[in-house]
This record gives sequence, C-alpha cells and structure tokens, in this order.
Amino acid sequence: MEAKGNRASEKAGRVMDGPTNPMVTPLLTDLYQFTMAYAYWKAGKHNERAVFDLYFRKNPFGGEFTVFAGLEECIKLIANFKLTEEEISFICQSLPGSCEEGFFNYLREIDCSDVEVYAISEGTVVFPKVPLLRVEGPVAVVQLLETPVLNLVNFASLVATNAARHRLVAGKSKMLLEFGLRRAQGPDGAIGASKYCYIGGFDATSNVAAGRLFGIPLRGTHSHAFVSSFTWSKSLSGIFGETNQSELAAFMSYALAFPSNFLALVDTYDVMRSGVPNFCAVALALRDLGYKAVGIRLDSGDLAYLSGEARKIFHTIEKEFGVPGFGKTSITASNDLNEETLDALNKQGHEVDCFGIGTYLVTCYAQAALGCVFKLVEINNQPRIKLSEDVSKVSIPCKKRCYRLYGKEGYSLVDIMTGENEPCPKVGERILCRHPFSESKRAYVVPKRVEELLKCYWPGKSDKVREELPALDDIRDHCIKQLEQMRPDHIRRLNPTPYKVSVSAKLYDFIHFLWLNEAPVGELQ
Amino acid sequence: MEAKGNRASEKAGRVMDGPTNPMVTPLLTDLYQFTMAYAYWKAGKHNERAVFDLYFRKNPFGGEFTVFAGLEECIKLIANFKLTEEEISFICQSLPGSCEEGFFNYLREIDCSDVEVYAISEGTVVFPKVPLLRVEGPVAVVQLLETPVLNLVNFASLVATNAARHRLVAGKSKMLLEFGLRRAQGPDGAIGASKYCYIGGFDATSNVAAGRLFGIPLRGTHSHAFVSSFTWSKSLSGIFGETNQSELAAFMSYALAFPSNFLALVDTYDVMRSGVPNFCAVALALRDLGYKAVGIRLDSGDLAYLSGEARKIFHTIEKEFGVPGFGKTSITASNDLNEETLDALNKQGHEVDCFGIGTYLVTCYAQAALGCVFKLVEINNQPRIKLSEDVSKVSIPCKKRCYRLYGKEGYSLVDIMTGENEPCPKVGERILCRHPFSESKRAYVVPKRVEELLKCYWPGKSDKVREELPALDDIRDHCIKQLEQMRPDHIRRLNPTPYKVSVSAKLYDFIHFLWLNEAPVGELQ
Repeated sequence: MEAKGNRASEKAGRVMDGPTNPMVTPLLTDLYQFTMAYAYWKAGKHNERAVFDLYFRKNPFGGEFTVFAGLEECIKLIANFKLTEEEISFICQSLPGSCEEGFFNYLREIDCSDVEVYAISEGTVVFPKVPLLRVEGPVAVVQLLETPVLNLVNFASLVATNAARHRLVAGKSKMLLEFGLRRAQGPDGAIGASKYCYIGGFDATSNVAAGRLFGIPLRGTHSHAFVSSFTWSKSLSGIFGETNQSELAAFMSYALAFPSNFLALVDTYDVMRSGVPNFCAVALALRDLGYKAVGIRLDSGDLAYLSGEARKIFHTIEKEFGVPGFGKTSITASNDLNEETLDALNKQGHEVDCFGIGTYLVTCYAQAALGCVFKLVEINNQPRIKLSEDVSKVSIPCKKRCYRLYGKEGYSLVDIMTGENEPCPKVGERILCRHPFSESKRAYVVPKRVEELLKCYWPGKSDKVREELPALDDIRDHCIKQLEQMRPDHIRRLNPTPYKVSVSAKLYDFIHFLWLNEAPVGELQ
Repeated sequence: MEAKGNRASEKAGRVMDGPTNPMVTPLLTDLYQFTMAYAYWKAGKHNERAVFDLYFRKNPFGGEFTVFAGLEECIKLIANFKLTEEEISFICQSLPGSCEEGFFNYLREIDCSDVEVYAISEGTVVFPKVPLLRVEGPVAVVQLLETPVLNLVNFASLVATNAARHRLVAGKSKMLLEFGLRRAQGPDGAIGASKYCYIGGFDATSNVAAGRLFGIPLRGTHSHAFVSSFTWSKSLSGIFGETNQSELAAFMSYALAFPSNFLALVDTYDVMRSGVPNFCAVALALRDLGYKAVGIRLDSGDLAYLSGEARKIFHTIEKEFGVPGFGKTSITASNDLNEETLDALNKQGHEVDCFGIGTYLVTCYAQAALGCVFKLVEINNQPRIKLSEDVSKVSIPCKKRCYRLYGKEGYSLVDIMTGENEPCPKVGERILCRHPFSESKRAYVVPKRVEELLKCYWPGKSDKVREELPALDDIRDHCIKQLEQMRPDHIRRLNPTPYKVSVSAKLYDFIHFLWLNEAPVGELQ
C-alpha cells in the first residue's frame, strides 16, 4: 500500500504507521508556527511547558451535537513527527530573514517524545467548549502541531457529524451509501469523507481507494453511460414491446456479468415505461436460471412517486407471476440527496430501501467548515485566558479534566470541566454545575454514572498508559451507541435542545477572578 | 520530496511524474467503473471507441464565469495510469460475485496509451456546456478515468474561481494571502486550495507544504498564543504607559528574531490602546538600529475603522517624529474574510494593504461543490445524446471542436462548438452562432480573432503533438490575462451578464434531429 505509512516506514523504530495521506508531514503547517518557533528559541522560551485545548464554539448544521473524529490521524502524525534534513533546509530558506545555525540543530532534535496528548475517544458525541484534545509540551513544538491537528480534526468531525445527521433522518433500517468521490474537495477530501461518513453511520462507499485503505464495504453497479453505450437498431424495435431496446441490451449484458448481483439503473430513458419493465424482464429471466435480482436504482425524477410505482409493479409480479419475495426487490435512490430531501421523502412516504448520497454529504454543503480552535490555557503552570468582546470567544483557562454525567435513564445529562487537581465527581453525589460565563445559569446534578472524557492517547515522558487506537468498525459502533445515549430532543432536526456544558464551582470562580484581573477597565468618552 | 511522484518513480520509463498526492491512483474511482469494465469486457465491448466530454452546467457563486484548473494533475494521473498486481487482486475481490480469470489479464494490460485527451489550457476562463476535457479511447478505460478526473477538476476549478472572485473584489493593488490550511477539507483540500488559489490570483500562502511542493511564496508571522505566552509582572506595569507589557515583551522578542521583518498582531489585548502603540514603540526602536518594520495585522473588530485609526497614527508618527515612509506601514487584515466582507470594506473605506483569507476561500463556503459531469457523446462513431426533462441537463452530442471568438476591443464575444469535421471559423467571416437548445436565440458574429480552445494534452496513438504542461506561474499569469480579456459586465459581482455559448448551425440541426429521434412521444392521460 504505497499511500499508507510510507513516511513512517522510512523511519525505523517508530511506534506506529504514519498518517493515511503521506502528504501529512510536519510541513503541513502554517509558516507562522515556524517563525514563532524561531522567536521562542531566540528568546530561550521554546521549552516552556504549555497546555493547549482544541475545541469548537458552535455545533455545525444548526444542530446541537457534533461527532468527534480525526484522532487516529492526529496520533499517527504525532507518533511520526520528525523533520527531515531537506525539510529543515526548506524551513530555514522560508523564514523571513536569516536564522542562526543553532536553530537548525534545534529543529533536528524536535519530536513529540515530550508531548502529552489527552483526547476524547474518536466517534464520541461532543459539545462546544469542551476540549476534544488537550496537548501539553514544549511551547514551540506544540505550536507546530496546532495547524495540522486542526486540519485533521475539523473536516473529519464535520463530515462525520453530517453523516450521523443523514443517518438520523433516514432511520436505522435504510442502507446508506456514500457516493461523493467525484464532487469532493480533492482526492482526500473524498477519501476522508468515505472514512468519516462510515464512522458517522453510513454502510458503504463507492470509493475503491477508501475501501482498500480502510476496509469499508464497497458498492456500485453501472451508470447512464453504460446504458447509452448500447445501441439497438430501431428496425428491430417493433418486435419487442414499448421499452427501449438499447436499455434492455445493457441490462442483459450487466446481468450476464453479475447474475447474482443484478441491480439496474432504470432512469436513462423512462423509468415506468422502459426502465422498470426492462428490469423486471431481465430479473424474471435470471430467476429461471436460478438467480435472484437485487433491485433498481432511481437517479432522477420524483423519487417518492417513482419508488411507490415501482414497488406496486414488484408486488404485482410477485402475485401474478407467483414469484415469492419479488415485492421486496430493493429500490435505491441517488439524485442530489441531502438531509432535507430525505426528510421530505419521509413526509411524503416512499418505498426506497437504500440511499446513495454524494455532493451534499461529502462537501458538507450546508456548512462547509467546522471552526475548531487551539487555545493556550496554561504556560509554565500559569493559567492563560483569551479575552474577547464576544463572550462566546473567551477561552476557558487552566489544564482541566472533563466528565460526562449520566442520569438514571442512561442518557447523558451534562458535561462538566474541573481544574486538573479537583476531585472527580462521584456517582450519587450532588454536584453543582455552572455555566462558565453566565452567573445565573447553574444546576445541581446527582449522576448515576460518571465518565472521564479525556484519555491519554500519547503519554510523552509521563508514566500514563497509552490508550490504544481502536479499529474503524469499533469507532463506528461507538458512535452509533453514543447517539443512542443522547436524549432525543438534543439530536432532533427541528429546534433541538442545547446540551449543557458546565464548569465546577471552583473553576467558575477562578475563571472570573482571572477575567477581572486581565480585562482592561473601559473608559466611556 | 516524499509526497510527490513516488508512485511514478516506482515505474520505470514513465513520461512524467505522478499526481502530487500519491493517493491519486487508478483505485481513486467509483466501484461501478470497475463493475462496468467487467460487464463491457464480458460483452466484448470494452475496446469500443468512446468519446466523453467533461463540462459543467452552471457557473458557481452566482457568477457568470469559472476558472478551469486541475488539468496538470489529470494528465499526470493519465500518464501513470497502470494497476499494480495488488490493486488488481483487490478489485477482483471487491466486484460483486466472482469474475473470470481473463478479466485479471485484461486489467493487467490497461493503460492510457490508446487514450487521447484534448483540453482547454489550465487557468482559462470557461463557461457552461463547453467541454473542458474531451477524453477518447476504449470505453472501459475512459470510464475508469471518469471519477478521478472529475474529482481533480471539480474542486480545483471551484477554488480557483473563488480566488479569482476575491481578487476581483479586492482589486489589483492589494496583497492577498491564503490562510486556510486549518479549516480546509482535509490535508489536500488545503494543499489543493493553496495551489489553485495561487492560480486564481492570490499572492502567497501560509501553508508550508504547499510552498515546498509548488514554490508558492510563503507568509506568516505570529499568533495570539505567542503574545499571551509572554507574562509580565503586574507590579512593573506602573513604570510603563497604559499598554499591555506582556504584549510589548512579545513584540520585542519577535522583533529580535526577525528585525527586518517585524509584523505584529496587534489585537490580543486592545488594538488602539495597546497593540498599535506597542508596535510603534518597537518599530521606532528598530529604526534606531537601522531596521524598517513591516507592519501590523488586525484579526478582529471593525477592520475599516481600526485600519483607518492605525493609519492616522502612522501618519502622525511620520510627521511628528520625522520618520519618512512610516505613514505607509503595511496593514494586514484577517478575520473571517470573504467576498462580501471585502466588498463591504471597499464601500466603507479602509486602509488595509493586505488580506489574509482562510475558511470561506478554501472551503468555498458560499458553494462547496462544482457540478462537472462526464458524458458519453459518441461511441463507435455514433453520436450519443443524453436526454432529460430538464433541458439544461440535455448533453450536446458528437465529438466537437470548440472556439472562442474575439471582437475588436479584444474582449471575447462568444464560444462556439462545431462538429469535428466542420471548417474552422475564420477571422472576418460572418458566423451564425446558435443557442444549442433555444431556436430563437442566435446571432451573427464577425470575429477579429479566433482561438481553438481544445488542445491535445495526451495524444495516445494519434500523431498529434502533445501540448506541454506549463509552469504554475505561467498558469497564474494566463488566468490573470484571461480575466482582463473578459468584458467587465460578465465578471462583475452584481447581476453579471451571461457570456454566450453557442453551436454552429450545422451542429444545431444535428442535435435537434437526434433529439426528435430519441425522445419518446408522450401520451397525456
């Protein structure tokens, strides 16, 4: 597999493979991370111990939840984070002005052996303000990680969330296929989308490369061009019915190639007058040979109406020709679908069993970016707060612990952040959960279960045990279970209830002490 | 350079390097291209000569033009299109049902030596319906190319167009920097955006990997975290003015590291009460040492107002301290900018010299996908037309030639498509240009200049001369010149005039003959 891990394999003794995309190297960062590294180094500050939180401020797509994804790729980057000589010389040429020789030597030494990464498990349902990753280490090194880690988490979480939202609308019983490769934002916009849509609850992809890299099930049959590449002399048409005979020839060819997996695209000419009758003719012929046809795909027109009409014909054939099970012939739909069209189809009623979803899913058309940020919360054991006139942009200072508290019905109730050294919230204890910025918003919670969210995925020089990276299918299962643990009103499409994110009373007091201390007193003029 | 061309280098005797992203392989395609290849092969149709057109139906972003990009990567894929043994066995496992041994052998033979690719030059301004690429060859092979080629062209052209639109609003005199890496759709969503934004008229990127891969100029200084990583004891503050002393310390450190390139982010605490005065203090000190400060960056607040106030201070310093040129100190702005905010800033008046643009640019937030399609227009010398109830979705049949006709002011007037064997339109001749689908829309044009749009970029077994792939800077220059040749009303933001795309009288007649022939006669019930 050329595209996987070839960077890692260049370096003997690495703990794990490199990122899926070999273009993910320490150079996949903003230039200012290197100019700052030089400035830190010149000031003798580069080894100051810094703690950064990666979090987002607002859930995407007008919803009240997000699926966290991208962690595995981040850890693979961190595990293999080492600059080559050629990269170092490129960096030094690229810095504005000349830099001292000693900085080259410093860059040669840099790796993530002294960096610690705590993260929420991939596939977990997450909320604004709670750190998804906490990265600690020498300030210059952790800053270099900022950009690639944001890049790897932002789109992964966005598209996994989009997929989960499509799954919630489609319902559990439908098959969902990701068909976005041709419209995705570049080659690994596509490959990433295939991976993270699978995590978010899709069943398969059309993307062969993603199938090979990640073991995701593959699906696909034929296109309109296949049908129209068959030509049938008009003079022969008279002896057949009214259907398009070129289409019939295409279906027969396809069925000969895949007799056990005959699935026909039926809208090249006319769904009800040609495609469906031609499909049925071939399906019945296959049946005589001992094969069972899979079904049809609709790629245009009124999907609610056409799927219903096709279903009626399948039922009629089951009854009139005595073909048991024919009424259940699978119907796939695939024409520019998105959350809204799935919702509209549900409201109209439809007979579709399987949806193929492309453009709107993989490009996250409804909102093309997630705004994760990476903020300094502590340096040299000194807490740092980033103020802003916009309260939603004020950062929550300090190295923190984060917990999810569950109620008696098994639903999660609230997330709470505490200072690093505060005692862990206990089951059955009454805990005051405060809104981080709003004095009046607070609630007591008596949790039935307490889950610590941040786990150690990269221990650096600490003696923590490194959490293993789970297999893709386990991440997907975790995501599906996570969504089942959410109270339905938090995840519904229309006017979802915001999930509460809180801080401990002690952290609340500390935030506001710092805030007052740092904020300039305004002067009205 | 690990990430570039390592696939190509595995294969001796290749004409050119492989695609920038080594994940771009023949497997980066939809599974149905392989199922169809098998069905074509089973039917003995796989070598039938097919012609496909790649085109889009609607310009993005509500505009009336598109910048074509992605060609170089397509040609690099085509030049290196060869399946490995491991890929072949993966494909055969992935097909639904078992496939015959002979198909493996067929897959082993497949390459693009018998494929011809005609394309419009990369960086050209293009319009709906006109083929950007025409790909001819054995139908099974050309179908395999469909998905990767669409993937490589769709996002490239979308983001190049987005960049060109930002350049048009910003004006020629402003410096435009692409800062989107952290929010892009995955690693090469970012790397691709850097490349294609440069083609579309940006001046530089923050993305170090893109700088190394493509030689794009790099820019970047420091972040808020750099400023807030400096702490200054409050007890010392009294002896300085009202500015934040931690910020001053950070600026001094940065200036010591890059005395010739001091550019300070001035909004960590308070732009006018702290950031700008601190910048000026450091800039004046640098001046005493013989260095000239570059400028400031604003990343929040009212950019029109703040840039104006900062400019006033710079002018005052120039006058009162007698510092020639200080009034021209550069001001960069970079807070969630997009076409609309640039336009609003222009209307308000501002003093910004340079814009750093991220999320909205690289993710094409206003429209996250371009809808290029790849349609069969001819097979075995038989023209094919794809009908649709939606006229805009009817394809233009036949292997075609495409020309751009220019008027006396040097502006391009109209694009015209003709049949392959029609004579080329001549300068000074009166040419009837017809709308392809609307009988009443037609116009005579007497061109001052005629340009053939489709050039041979991959000659296959024909004796055509292969067009060289130009250097990135040449593509960028071409794009800039192209936009200058457009009549301003076609490219303006508000209510742009649609550019005319036409067919010859002969092709018009032929389209409508085919259409009538293929379309079923409806029955009203």
